[in-house]
Amino acid sequence: MLTLDELTTFFNAEFPHVTCTVESVGNMGAVIRQRVTPTELRPGGTVAGPVLMSMADIALYAAILGEIGLVPLAVTTSLNINFLRRPSPDADVIAECRLIKLGKTLAVGEVSLYSEGIDAPVAHAVGTYSIPPR
Amino acid sequence: MLTLDELTTFFNAEFPHVTCTVESVGNMGAVIRQRVTPTELRPGGTVAGPVLMSMADIALYAAILGEIGLVPLAVTTSLNINFLRRPSPDADVIAECRLIKLGKTLAVGEVSLYSEGIDAPVAHAVGTYSIPPR
Amino acid sequence: MLTLDELTTFFNAEFPHVTCTVESVGNMGAVIRQRVTPTELRPGGTVAGPVLMSMADIALYAAILGEIGLVPLAVTTSLNINFLRRPSPDADVIAECRLIKLGKTLAVGEVSLYSEGIDAPVAHAVGTYSIPPR
Amino acid sequence: MLTLDELTTFFNAEFPHVTCTVESVGNMGAVIRQRVTPTELRPGGTVAGPVLMSMADIALYAAILGEIGLVPLAVTTSLNINFLRRPSPDADVIAECRLIKLGKTLAVGEVSLYSEGIDAPVAHAVGTYSIPPR
Repeated sequence: MLTLDELTTFFNAEFPHVTCTVESVGNMGAVIRQRVTPTELRPGGTVAGPVLMSMADIALYAAILGEIGLVPLAVTTSLNINFLRRPSPDADVIAECRLIKLGKTLAVGEVSLYSEGIDAPVAHAVGTYSIPPR
Repeated sequence: MLTLDELTTFFNAEFPHVTCTVESVGNMGAVIRQRVTPTELRPGGTVAGPVLMSMADIALYAAILGEIGLVPLAVTTSLNINFLRRPSPDADVIAECRLIKLGKTLAVGEVSLYSEGIDAPVAHAVGTYSIPPR
Repeated sequence: MLTLDELTTFFNAEFPHVTCTVESVGNMGAVIRQRVTPTELRPGGTVAGPVLMSMADIALYAAILGEIGLVPLAVTTSLNINFLRRPSPDADVIAECRLIKLGKTLAVGEVSLYSEGIDAPVAHAVGTYSIPPR
Repeated sequence: MLTLDELTTFFNAEFPHVTCTVESVGNMGAVIRQRVTPTELRPGGTVAGPVLMSMADIALYAAILGEIGLVPLAVTTSLNINFLRRPSPDADVIAECRLIKLGKTLAVGEVSLYSEGIDAPVAHAVGTYSIPPR
């Protein structure tokens, strides 16, 4: 089992461009937070779609690493995302991932994304990762 | 029908953070190019997945605007992407979008993404956009 | 709010070929049961993929009708399904749908499918329905 | 390389319930035909969505078997389908599959579905298959 500190250290070293933070990891899940700054906004004052897609991908990766350890060669094989509501430009975005399958070579998880403080999700994603043989 | 110059001017004004360029637009399609710099790479020297997702989204948007004109309120409602092969770190990524439905309120398109100069695609996406009533 | 009896009567009249039954409906969700007979099996003794896809579609439809009433013109616009584990040939399949968006023109829901009595899901789907203007 | 006759014989033996026929196979693709009878229709006189999903799945399977031979243990791992237009109740449905990746353990293909004689597709699907180690 990976600790939150170990995962954060790994992300900071390997993905220095990523600006979101891991809030929790373990029990087949992970929670990710993205601060919303002008960089994350698009015209109309909403959070850009690619920011949400990127968060979904990172939340899946974090949840998988939380179970199998620091395996950098796990790679995304698919991501399906539905955009449900306009995110608030004034709130952080929270992504909650729950793995629904963790096989030897394939992991599948779903991710719900929220503007912090608002119950209805702004997006929902399902992604698959290929896990390299150990 | 929108010209390439009109679309490029619109993107530069509305999406100043976007670093890819529109190569062609029209006939229910669009082609987008992304230069690959260290910003687009992830550990292992491959193009980051979110860069490809973002390109697929922009290619769809460009193809739709090419048909309906500059309607900034068209929004992505879903994106499904399959990652097929490792992109080359040394080649631009090209995204070719083809619309397969352009209805009054919904557009659907598919996008093939390539490392320039290599035939086999690195990713394939299908996305849907909601078009506001005119 | 639609009752289970009203929905069952509607399904029996409109979809006489459908062999699954609605177990519950309401609160933005629905539960569907499919008995597994030789018709539902494929070689190797597992439940055929199209049976699961069909159940996911019906579970979404039931959940939507439970909220908006008997609107036969609601139509599926997309379905994304991940097959996770081999279903048991000896157990009914249960599909649990939960709507994550119910807008005026678009509904989105997710469906978890189980072999009855086994906790780990056999498949997971996300689907979208277009709702006609009222 | 598998011939059309070999594949048809295999399908008839292994999937006696399947009523569609393989029209062609090879070159990383396959074409499937489904006659439309009252069994395939739903209220409103259109072809049922699950019929199209099932065809997409079979077209993918046929295209894969055409490349790797009769490997019955290849299984669908995901299917994403967009429904684009109402199919005609009076025309056969044709599904054209093209594989976009054929790896050692994973195949990905896209499928366009048409009402015969009408150019605009009624649906478009992307599916993935897991291929067992040989």
